[in-house]
Amino acid sequence: MLLKPEEYIERLGEYKRDIYVLGKKIEDFVNHPNIRPTVEAMAYTYSIAEKYAPHSELVGEKVNRLNYVNQTFEDLIARYDYQRELSLKLATCNYRCTGCDAINAIYPATKALDEREGTDYHRRFLELLKEIQKKDYACTAALTDVKGDRGKRPSEQKDKYLRVVEKREDGIVVRGAKICQSGAFAADVNFVLPTQTFRPGEEEFAVVFAAMPEDEGIKYILQNTGIQAKQREGGKFEAGNKYGDRTTCMVVFDDVFIPWERVFVFEDLKAARDVVSYFAPSHRCVGAACKAGFIDSMAGAASLMLKTSGLENVSALQQKVAEMVAVSEGAFAISVGAAVKGANHNGCWLPNFQMANSGKVIGVEGFAKALMNLIDISGGIIGTSPSEFDLEMVGDFLRASEKFTAEQRLKIVKFIEFWTTSSHLVGAFHGGGSPTAALITLRFLMDLSSREEAVKNCIDF
Amino acid sequence: MLLKPEEYIERLGEYKRDIYVLGKKIEDFVNHPNIRPTVEAMAYTYSIAEKYAPHSELVGEKVNRLNYVNQTFEDLIARYDYQRELSLKLATCNYRCTGCDAINAIYPATKALDEREGTDYHRRFLELLKEIQKKDYACTAALTDVKGDRGKRPSEQKDKYLRVVEKREDGIVVRGAKICQSGAFAADVNFVLPTQTFRPGEEEFAVVFAAMPEDEGIKYILQNTGIQAKQREGGKFEAGNKYGDRTTCMVVFDDVFIPWERVFVFEDLKAARDVVSYFAPSHRCVGAACKAGFIDSMAGAASLMLKTSGLENVSALQQKVAEMVAVSEGAFAISVGAAVKGANHNGCWLPNFQMANSGKVIGVEGFAKALMNLIDISGGIIGTSPSEFDLEMVGDFLRASEKFTAEQRLKIVKFIEFWTTSSHLVGAFHGGGSPTAALITLRFLMDLSSREEAVKNCIDF
Amino acid sequence: MLLKPEEYIERLGEYKRDIYVLGKKIEDFVNHPNIRPTVEAMAYTYSIAEKYAPHSELVGEKVNRLNYVNQTFEDLIARYDYQRELSLKLATCNYRCTGCDAINAIYPATKALDEREGTDYHRRFLELLKEIQKKDYACTAALTDVKGDRGKRPSEQKDKYLRVVEKREDGIVVRGAKICQSGAFAADVNFVLPTQTFRPGEEEFAVVFAAMPEDEGIKYILQNTGIQAKQREGGKFEAGNKYGDRTTCMVVFDDVFIPWERVFVFEDLKAARDVVSYFAPSHRCVGAACKAGFIDSMAGAASLMLKTSGLENVSALQQKVAEMVAVSEGAFAISVGAAVKGANHNGCWLPNFQMANSGKVIGVEGFAKALMNLIDISGGIIGTSPSEFDLEMVGDFLRASEKFTAEQRLKIVKFIEFWTTSSHLVGAFHGGGSPTAALITLRFLMDLSSREEAVKNCIDF
Amino acid sequence: MLLKPEEYIERLGEYKRDIYVLGKKIEDFVNHPNIRPTVEAMAYTYSIAEKYAPHSELVGEKVNRLNYVNQTFEDLIARYDYQRELSLKLATCNYRCTGCDAINAIYPATKALDEREGTDYHRRFLELLKEIQKKDYACTAALTDVKGDRGKRPSEQKDKYLRVVEKREDGIVVRGAKICQSGAFAADVNFVLPTQTFRPGEEEFAVVFAAMPEDEGIKYILQNTGIQAKQREGGKFEAGNKYGDRTTCMVVFDDVFIPWERVFVFEDLKAARDVVSYFAPSHRCVGAACKAGFIDSMAGAASLMLKTSGLENVSALQQKVAEMVAVSEGAFAISVGAAVKGANHNGCWLPNFQMANSGKVIGVEGFAKALMNLIDISGGIIGTSPSEFDLEMVGDFLRASEKFTAEQRLKIVKFIEFWTTSSHLVGAFHGGGSPTAALITLRFLMDLSSREEAVKNCIDF
Repeated sequence: MLLKPEEYIERLGEYKRDIYVLGKKIEDFVNHPNIRPTVEAMAYTYSIAEKYAPHSELVGEKVNRLNYVNQTFEDLIARYDYQRELSLKLATCNYRCTGCDAINAIYPATKALDEREGTDYHRRFLELLKEIQKKDYACTAALTDVKGDRGKRPSEQKDKYLRVVEKREDGIVVRGAKICQSGAFAADVNFVLPTQTFRPGEEEFAVVFAAMPEDEGIKYILQNTGIQAKQREGGKFEAGNKYGDRTTCMVVFDDVFIPWERVFVFEDLKAARDVVSYFAPSHRCVGAACKAGFIDSMAGAASLMLKTSGLENVSALQQKVAEMVAVSEGAFAISVGAAVKGANHNGCWLPNFQMANSGKVIGVEGFAKALMNLIDISGGIIGTSPSEFDLEMVGDFLRASEKFTAEQRLKIVKFIEFWTTSSHLVGAFHGGGSPTAALITLRFLMDLSSREEAVKNCIDF
Repeated sequence: MLLKPEEYIERLGEYKRDIYVLGKKIEDFVNHPNIRPTVEAMAYTYSIAEKYAPHSELVGEKVNRLNYVNQTFEDLIARYDYQRELSLKLATCNYRCTGCDAINAIYPATKALDEREGTDYHRRFLELLKEIQKKDYACTAALTDVKGDRGKRPSEQKDKYLRVVEKREDGIVVRGAKICQSGAFAADVNFVLPTQTFRPGEEEFAVVFAAMPEDEGIKYILQNTGIQAKQREGGKFEAGNKYGDRTTCMVVFDDVFIPWERVFVFEDLKAARDVVSYFAPSHRCVGAACKAGFIDSMAGAASLMLKTSGLENVSALQQKVAEMVAVSEGAFAISVGAAVKGANHNGCWLPNFQMANSGKVIGVEGFAKALMNLIDISGGIIGTSPSEFDLEMVGDFLRASEKFTAEQRLKIVKFIEFWTTSSHLVGAFHGGGSPTAALITLRFLMDLSSREEAVKNCIDF
Repeated sequence: MLLKPEEYIERLGEYKRDIYVLGKKIEDFVNHPNIRPTVEAMAYTYSIAEKYAPHSELVGEKVNRLNYVNQTFEDLIARYDYQRELSLKLATCNYRCTGCDAINAIYPATKALDEREGTDYHRRFLELLKEIQKKDYACTAALTDVKGDRGKRPSEQKDKYLRVVEKREDGIVVRGAKICQSGAFAADVNFVLPTQTFRPGEEEFAVVFAAMPEDEGIKYILQNTGIQAKQREGGKFEAGNKYGDRTTCMVVFDDVFIPWERVFVFEDLKAARDVVSYFAPSHRCVGAACKAGFIDSMAGAASLMLKTSGLENVSALQQKVAEMVAVSEGAFAISVGAAVKGANHNGCWLPNFQMANSGKVIGVEGFAKALMNLIDISGGIIGTSPSEFDLEMVGDFLRASEKFTAEQRLKIVKFIEFWTTSSHLVGAFHGGGSPTAALITLRFLMDLSSREEAVKNCIDF
Repeated sequence: MLLKPEEYIERLGEYKRDIYVLGKKIEDFVNHPNIRPTVEAMAYTYSIAEKYAPHSELVGEKVNRLNYVNQTFEDLIARYDYQRELSLKLATCNYRCTGCDAINAIYPATKALDEREGTDYHRRFLELLKEIQKKDYACTAALTDVKGDRGKRPSEQKDKYLRVVEKREDGIVVRGAKICQSGAFAADVNFVLPTQTFRPGEEEFAVVFAAMPEDEGIKYILQNTGIQAKQREGGKFEAGNKYGDRTTCMVVFDDVFIPWERVFVFEDLKAARDVVSYFAPSHRCVGAACKAGFIDSMAGAASLMLKTSGLENVSALQQKVAEMVAVSEGAFAISVGAAVKGANHNGCWLPNFQMANSGKVIGVEGFAKALMNLIDISGGIIGTSPSEFDLEMVGDFLRASEKFTAEQRLKIVKFIEFWTTSSHLVGAFHGGGSPTAALITLRFLMDLSSREEAVKNCIDF
């Protein structure tokens, strides 16, 4: 079923959640100024879902593309088209992408696990997936543990990694915290995956499950960025983007009970590794499509800024806009190419792993380059302008091209200020792991021997 | 005389000023949460002034280096040492650098003007300079006009450029607004300079003068960044840096009367051009030293971050810190080299103009590179962490290396978040004009013919 | 029909051609030390043709992929796979790519031309294409005119642009010269296309035709690079790569008669523009796949070099190899993505034009980056080593890892020296036009309005 | 004494040397086509020596700046001015810079050694230095050993590192080979220094001495680049630059006897380390000035190329020339700044070590960027042009702007081809050690604690 945006919001309003902002538990979280923009962003995914929606054989109806197990490369491309449009339209996270990556990682990993061990994790997962598809749940995935002292193994500092602290007949009890969680507080389901691979003796950390908002002991502690501080002060557009900064949280699991029906990997190092190994390229590849959409947004902003300043005909500046579009189209093309050159893994079509990691690296470089171009083109005003509340006093000075009002120009300025001071630059680097992590992954994936052989032929080695 | 920091603050408290934040005029501006950090930053310039202070023959005593007309390249190097230390120690503007650049531009330009025209602008300027040196005034300079539609000349949109609207026996009346003004609201003197060169028929814009806080009709409208919104919410370190974001304002001149004694260029296109031509390299060159100090701060933060995470011994990460130091040392060395290869202009030692512009270009590239390295090294937490107000709840999770408390780690995280979301990246690009502007300047300065001749010799042309 | 490599060479040996090296006409061109490597490279395209060969309905048999009009995106991907393999295996041009681009540009352009004007150029072209496919001709395309003074129009300096100087009943006579022609001297057919678009009054330059080796008045004047000088001196591997430097020539048309059957555009500005507009993205996109293959070769060389030096386990160096693979996979993925997101133009599937131009830009940046990494990794020896003729004297010193002989190590060194001093870096920049040209093209193609609209929605514009 | 260029050449002609090219010992080495350009380049250092020549107290007369022990930062700046002019004028190595670095490393190291151990190495060195200064010898320095398998220590593969194989009453016998030696074959003195620091037990490698051309057992085996192959073929300008490619050699020491008077460090690990520690920053810093000169040459070539093509008024292209000048001025300013911020080490003024390493890193990046700009600006012709021997045939086509002849245009083209295919790019990376090596050095030099302290103050740590 495809939910309407307002239905998602309505359902969200019925949940009770422990959400903290600035150290205090908040009421009516759906309308909190730091959460409402996230809710609107997630709702937007519902509003344009139809055109990307596949038919799911699992439930016999159309479902949201983000809750679907991709079968073909066309599926994957449809997802990337969807992602790029969302990033462009929202200029911030859509928050559901990690949920999709989790579904497309748990599916093939549990299938292999059951085949190997004779367990029935995959069936359990399908049960939940059916519900997700039918109810059009918004899902997110939590991987990053707080990790503590990086010089130590998890077993030396157990409280820094989410782990199973009790095994019961009806389920497990988990304890720990996940950090860097985008939008988890506004989702229907939070998948929980391992942050890394583990070694023998560390089985307690090798767990994959789904947490639900009604589960007791889950707390969401929101991050606090400057843009979010602005959101709390109100105004029509002072915070720059009505969909807000990329809003993340820490999720604390204070001895949370998870029934077996929602446990998909339990103390199995191999399956945990599989989940991570499928999730990473899946997320890195969609990240390239996401960055393409973000750069599209910056290019649109750059173009509007030039127009409001009467600079739209300066060739050197348009060349810089073209550079932005070049990296956007390039990053997106990488994700599409990776989809086509991908492969079926246990019934799930995943992108080409090498290209996915390449997309991460080039996508981030492109994002950073586009941001620099945007700054260069836009002029100093994007870092120094008065607020919307000063508009009456300074509007006559701020207005430039007669085709735009002073308010319109200030809106553009604030939107660009948003791009330059939001947490998106950091997010671009670290979403799905850093570029360095992607390169390390590539070292394991890359086939140097065939390249060496070709060289040998050129030199009669 | 060298003022004590507290004396500067005390004097500031005695001024009455029209300062607006979020559309409202504020009281007790010295203690306003968006201004106090700037005041502290400027006060810091007084606290370490002694070691850089030259003896001024003009007043026969030691004066602040920032109020001094540099006589030798050693003077200039001392200034750059001072600047770099300030940028490192403050991690934000010291706000007095434009004042120093203005003094070192008006001095030689008025000297030449008087010699050419038989006027006495230079004497007037020296009178004010004596007062500035004796009272150790904090000075800033305002150049950037709002400019309006960039496709039009100033004469087609007079209200977008500050100009003389009345000439009286005792002085002039000016109208207009200057944007991108760092710290003007917390200074003792605001020099006002042209934003660009002007053509015949545009003499009304070719004016240079000094505005004083007691002048009627001056309004300061503060910018509003996310970090500044955080400052308004209080907390011990939530805004990241106790010296605050780079805080700028728009200065509105609502028919302000300036007595002749404070007018230094009046309707003289050549002198106005000289002022701009001296100011630009002076400011761009000190900007390289400034960026060096900022990168130093980021390198220190990176190093601390690695230590708190237990990653200080990872070679690949230290290599990235070394890259940061390389660009810092390089940018600073350029400013020093430019000082040595500079020249005396009408009694004022200015840096080598080509090297100064090069310093701008390489300094900004270095700043951007250092910022990317900082982000890469520090991990996703710098874009996603909870606030200081959540510390009690999440401290145990955030703590990593046992050598640091959770609060200490969060302080580092928030400081790095400050670097990644403050307005400094935009400021680095546009302070003193964009890199593109510096390159355009270089096109006029660069000597291609001697380079061409050398090539011709290599090929018996 | 798919020719065997030796059949291509044999046929080549039967041609008589005016080919000049160092100012002298050469005999037995097929075995000349500057041409034989090119012949071997082109022969290699025949040796692996089978696995990429499509069935052509035009002739009812399997034909070489490079002589085929692509119908689907799968066709295009097959071509890119072929291209990447060739670039990797040859470490130099395969020389037939421009021919393929010409076929895929003339086909749709003449189809549109005939529909518009009722002419029969398309039929003529199909006749030649049948012959090409049946005989498995090696084709190249010549676009770049010498252009002369770039400040003047073609009509002001007619001898700098190839043009029609006589129109006869049986054909046309053309005069001029094309520069930057890779491998034209070793092909069976040279397509000739316009270097740019032309304006009314410049119809004489708007001509597209096919030249044949037997046409009188065609002269090939070979370029002369350092690597080619080495080739003339002989040795087993001193020149680095047995397939030689990228070998180009100037083709002079000294009043060459072309029968109507081989004329495909004649004095038609629109059709000439179409040909250029189809050729450019086609060539730029395959160029990204080509660069991927070149980078693959460099990555293989880097890996071998590390092994011969005993450095293969140094993590920091392997990370740099991974960066090379990242740009290779990324550039290739862009070409694949562009194929999928391409479109059918008058019966010919062409890549997405925006992505094609992006591939050019990112491909060149990637090539340059990979080259720098290769240099960095390989050590100073790649720029300073003795020759193979010194091996007896210095072999003991050059040998490093015991797993390789001194000769093997020197072969790798010379191969890397080849990459760093051949004309490939220049070729990467300018093949298919410079990155700047690609960006200018993007400015015309890019859709800013939809991006602007998205931004407007984010700010309630 | 300051020798005249012809006197240096005459003296060179009197030496007998074992020099090998392409595996064969050559006669009349001074006039060999691969050596004569190097001789001319070194002779050029004599022709402009006067304006940079200091008075040496050691010999009581004016001496060449390159044979001088720098006393002040002005000395060092004079050297950098000299270096930059040489690089610009020659567009290749001057070959004497390593000699100067060796003198300025051995001087302070032996002074400290004698003070520590009571030896008289320093006196010996001064004796030789006097002779060098009086006779105006051209000196070079050899550091890089062939190193063999980098996974092994020198003691495991003694033949890969130059070492003492016999200690006699009158001197020592050394064996081994040094690679990457620029111009050693055309010098009067070859200083030999360690390639790295050594550990206890490796004392046999810790040796510093001066080799003379008359020493028996020294062989010079020349490198072989493409440009050098062109030089052997003759022509007036076909090889691009009359001063030739950077010409290096391997120097083989086949049991060479060195009398004690020319031994300056013998089996002393600390002194050997000192020599390396002084040499490295000295050479890296002058390398930045050198790169500045090379970039100047490229900028001059770019400017001429634009003029010959009629493109000199295209703003976007001039902007790229300005970028080249920006990196040139910046790299040079770093060397000047490093000189000023340097220090006296045992009677010798050396540049600031951190800035010197920064100069290496930024200088190489600048060189690579300038090269890319040069390629971008110049057009495809620089990688595809016919030879000078084809000029008669193609001159009319190659000519462009009427202000230049076809030959002049081709000379510029060949000069730029030289820059793009010579071994200078590799040389820029590896001269004085790679950028990576410079960064590793910086890690040991950089002061992070003061930077950390500054950060702590900003956050009340």
